[in-house]
Amino acid sequence: MSEKPWETMIDLARKASRERLEEYVDSLSSADTAWAIERLDVEERREVLAAMAPEAAAELIEEVPDAQSAELIESLETAEAAAILNVLPSADQADLIAELEDPQAEAVLAAMDPEEARGARLLGQYPPDVAGGIMVTEFLAFPEDRAIGEVLDELRRNAMQYSDYDVQYVYITSAAGELVGVLRLRDVVLAGAERKVTEVMLSSPLSVRIDTPLQSLVEFFNDHAFFGVPVVLEDGRLVGVVKRSATRQAMTEQEVGDHLKVVGIVGGEELRSMSTLIRSRRRLSWLSVNILLNIAAASVIALYQDTLAQVIALAVFLPIISDMSGCSGNQAVAVSMRELSLGVVKPFEVLHVAAKEGIVGVVNGMVLGVLLSLAGLLYTGNPYLGAVVGAALAMNTVVAVLIGGTVPLLLRSRGLDPALASGPILTTVTDMCGFFLTLSMASLLLERLAA
Amino acid sequence: MSEKPWETMIDLARKASRERLEEYVDSLSSADTAWAIERLDVEERREVLAAMAPEAAAELIEEVPDAQSAELIESLETAEAAAILNVLPSADQADLIAELEDPQAEAVLAAMDPEEARGARLLGQYPPDVAGGIMVTEFLAFPEDRAIGEVLDELRRNAMQYSDYDVQYVYITSAAGELVGVLRLRDVVLAGAERKVTEVMLSSPLSVRIDTPLQSLVEFFNDHAFFGVPVVLEDGRLVGVVKRSATRQAMTEQEVGDHLKVVGIVGGEELRSMSTLIRSRRRLSWLSVNILLNIAAASVIALYQDTLAQVIALAVFLPIISDMSGCSGNQAVAVSMRELSLGVVKPFEVLHVAAKEGIVGVVNGMVLGVLLSLAGLLYTGNPYLGAVVGAALAMNTVVAVLIGGTVPLLLRSRGLDPALASGPILTTVTDMCGFFLTLSMASLLLERLAA
Repeated sequence: MSEKPWETMIDLARKASRERLEEYVDSLSSADTAWAIERLDVEERREVLAAMAPEAAAELIEEVPDAQSAELIESLETAEAAAILNVLPSADQADLIAELEDPQAEAVLAAMDPEEARGARLLGQYPPDVAGGIMVTEFLAFPEDRAIGEVLDELRRNAMQYSDYDVQYVYITSAAGELVGVLRLRDVVLAGAERKVTEVMLSSPLSVRIDTPLQSLVEFFNDHAFFGVPVVLEDGRLVGVVKRSATRQAMTEQEVGDHLKVVGIVGGEELRSMSTLIRSRRRLSWLSVNILLNIAAASVIALYQDTLAQVIALAVFLPIISDMSGCSGNQAVAVSMRELSLGVVKPFEVLHVAAKEGIVGVVNGMVLGVLLSLAGLLYTGNPYLGAVVGAALAMNTVVAVLIGGTVPLLLRSRGLDPALASGPILTTVTDMCGFFLTLSMASLLLERLAA
Repeated sequence: MSEKPWETMIDLARKASRERLEEYVDSLSSADTAWAIERLDVEERREVLAAMAPEAAAELIEEVPDAQSAELIESLETAEAAAILNVLPSADQADLIAELEDPQAEAVLAAMDPEEARGARLLGQYPPDVAGGIMVTEFLAFPEDRAIGEVLDELRRNAMQYSDYDVQYVYITSAAGELVGVLRLRDVVLAGAERKVTEVMLSSPLSVRIDTPLQSLVEFFNDHAFFGVPVVLEDGRLVGVVKRSATRQAMTEQEVGDHLKVVGIVGGEELRSMSTLIRSRRRLSWLSVNILLNIAAASVIALYQDTLAQVIALAVFLPIISDMSGCSGNQAVAVSMRELSLGVVKPFEVLHVAAKEGIVGVVNGMVLGVLLSLAGLLYTGNPYLGAVVGAALAMNTVVAVLIGGTVPLLLRSRGLDPALASGPILTTVTDMCGFFLTLSMASLLLERLAA
C-alpha cells in the first residue's frame, strides 16, 4: 500500500478504473479513508466520488466523520449528490441535507427519488435532539391480520433487503397505520407458523412521540433493555424507529460538541482541511469576545497604577494569580458540567454545589496560597509581599471554584448554554476579583511593601 | 413522589419493606436514581443496597454512572458485595472488582460463586482498552455436530435465561473449544430444522485476539456491520464476545476522561459526593504542578523589572497577552486532539499541522493584535505602547497555535498522554514567550514609551 492513500485514490479515480478504486477504498480502514479524504481538495474529492458507483460512494460517506460527510456532499453536482443520497439511510439523508445551503438542498431534494425525498423532508423538520431527528424510517411493519408463517415467508423472501435494516423487531399496525403490537425476532422463531401475529405479539407496545427530547430517549433506553423504540405521530401512526445506538451516538456528539465549545471551537466541528477563512472566522468569533472581556478585567489593574509603580514586583504575580484562579475555576466548571450530564446534580441545587466547592476551595486555596507566598518571599525577600500575593490567591481560589461550580447550573436553569458561556464568565470575574484583591491589599500595606 | 428521592429510599430501607423499596427504585428514572445515590452517605448507601435482593441491587448498580457503582460496591460488606457481583454481567464484575483495594477485592472474589469469580479474574487481567477488558463471557456456543433443530430446541427451552444474553449470534465450537463457525439468529430462523449447523454456519468466522486494542476494535466495527465479534485466545479457543456497543462506550469513556484531564480533573472522575480529601488531593496534584510552571514563566517578567518600572502601563497588558495566547493555543490543542481521535491526522504530520495552524495564527494574530494595540493607544495615548503590545500579541498568537497544534502530536508519537500534558506545556511556553516579546520590545523602545 502506498504511504499516501489519497494519491492512490485520486490516481485510480483519474484512470477511471471504477472497480479498482472501489476495491481500494474498501480495503482501507475507516481511519485511513478519513485521512485520505482530509488531504484531497474539493475538486479531487468530487472526482473520487464521481468515479464510484453511488452505493460505494454512500458507503464511503457513511464511514467518515460527519464533518467530512457534509463537505463531501457539498462538493458534488446536484445529480451526483442526489444519486448518493438516494441510497443512504433516512437519518443520514436528513443530516446531510441539513448541512447544505438552501438552494442546493432544494435542488438535491428535487433530484432525489420522490419517496426518499419525502422521508428526508419529514426527518429534516426535526432537530437532532428529538426523536424525529435521529429516527430511521426503514423498519418492518405487518398488518395485524397476518399469521406468523406469513411474516416468516416475507422475511425469507426479502432476507437480502431486510439485512440492511438491523432487524430486531417486527411492528404490527392497524389498517390506519397505528402501531398496535411488536414482535421480537426471537418470538417469531419460537412461535408456530400457524399462529396469528396478534396472539404472539406484545400488544400496546411502548413507543415514543416524534418530538420526544434526546434526554428522555436516553432515559428510556436506560430503563428498558430494547434495541429500538417505535416512533409515532400524535394520531398513533407509526413513522419510524429510534435505535438505542442512535441515541448513544447523538449524546456523544453533543458531549464532544460541548467540550469543543468550552475551549472556543464554536460554530461546528473544525477540520484543518476546511478553508482558512472559515477556521479563522469561527475561532475569532470567540476570541474577540474574550479579548474585550480580558481588557475589561485588566482595567482593574489600571486603577491601581500608583500602587504598582511603588511595588513593581506585584506585576510578576498578577498573571500567576489570574492563571491559577482560572485553572481552579475550570476544574469546578468541568465537574459541574459532568454532574449535570450524569444527572447527579439538578440545575437548582446551586447552594449544594457552592457548599461542596467552597470547602475544596478553602483547602486548595490555602495550599496554593502558601506556595505562592513562599515564592513571593523568596523572590522579593519581603514577607509582607509574600503574604499579600498568597492571601489574594487563597481567597480568589475560593471565589473561582464557587463561580466555576455554580455558573454552569445557573446558565442551564436559564436555558443558556453552559459549554459556551461558563469559561468567559469565569475568567472575567475571577480576573477582576483577583486583581482587585491583590492590589487593594497591597495598597493597604503599601508602606510595608514599598519599604 | 417526594421531592427528595433519597429520603424516600432510606426511609423504605429502614422500614425493611424490601418489596416497596425495590418497586420505588424501579419506578425512578436512571438519572433520579443516580441523583438519590449521590445524596446518600456511605452508611445509608449500604443500608439501601442491603435492604434489596441482590438482583435488584445489581440492577441499581448497572443503572448508575460507573464512578458511583464503584463507590457503592466499596461501601458493602464482603458477603453483600459478593452476592450482588454474582448476578452482574462478567464485564461489570471485573470493572467493579478492579476498583476495590486489593484485600477487599480478594475477599470478595473468594466469597463469590467460584465460576463467576473465575470469569471475573480472567477479565480482570486485561486493561479496559483491550478486547479482554471489555468483552462479556456470556454467549451461546454449540458443538459442531449438532443440527439446527437442536439449537432451536435449546433456545426455546432456555429462552428466559438467554434473553439476558442479547443473543444475536450462536457460536459453533470444535471439541477442543476452538471457534469454527457462527450462526446468525436470522439464519437459524430461515434454515430447516433438520440441517446440520455446519451446513448453515458461516465457517472461519472473523474473530479478534483477547489482547486486541480498543482502537482496532473500533476499526473492526466500522468496517463490519456486526453486533459483536468473538474473542479467542492464542490457541483459537473461544472465551468471550466483544459487543459493538461496548467498544463505543469504552471509546466515549476514554474521550470523556481525556476532556476531564485537559482541564485538570485527574486520577479518575470526580463526583461531589466523594470525600473532600480525595477531591482536594486530586485537584491539587495538577494545580501544584501548574503553579510551579506559572512561577517559572512569570520569572521572565522579573528579568525586565526596570523596563516595567518605567512603563507601568505594561503591567495591565501582560495578563491579557498571557490569557489570550492561552485561548488561541487551546483552540489549536482541541482541534489536534479531535483530529487525532478521528484519525484524520497522524502523529508524525507535525509539519502539516504547523502549516495549517501557522496561517490561521497569522490571520488571528493580526486581528487580535490590532484590537489590543487600539486598547493600548486608547488607554495610554501612546501609539508606541499600542504598537508594542499589539505586535507582541500578534506574534505570540502564532507561537501559541503552533505549539498548541503540534504538541499533542509530539506527545502522542512519544507515547505520552496529550490530554494531560498539552495544556501545562502550552501555557508555560506561551507565557514565557509572550512576556519576553512584550518586555524585550518595550525595552528597545523604552525612550518612546516612557516619554
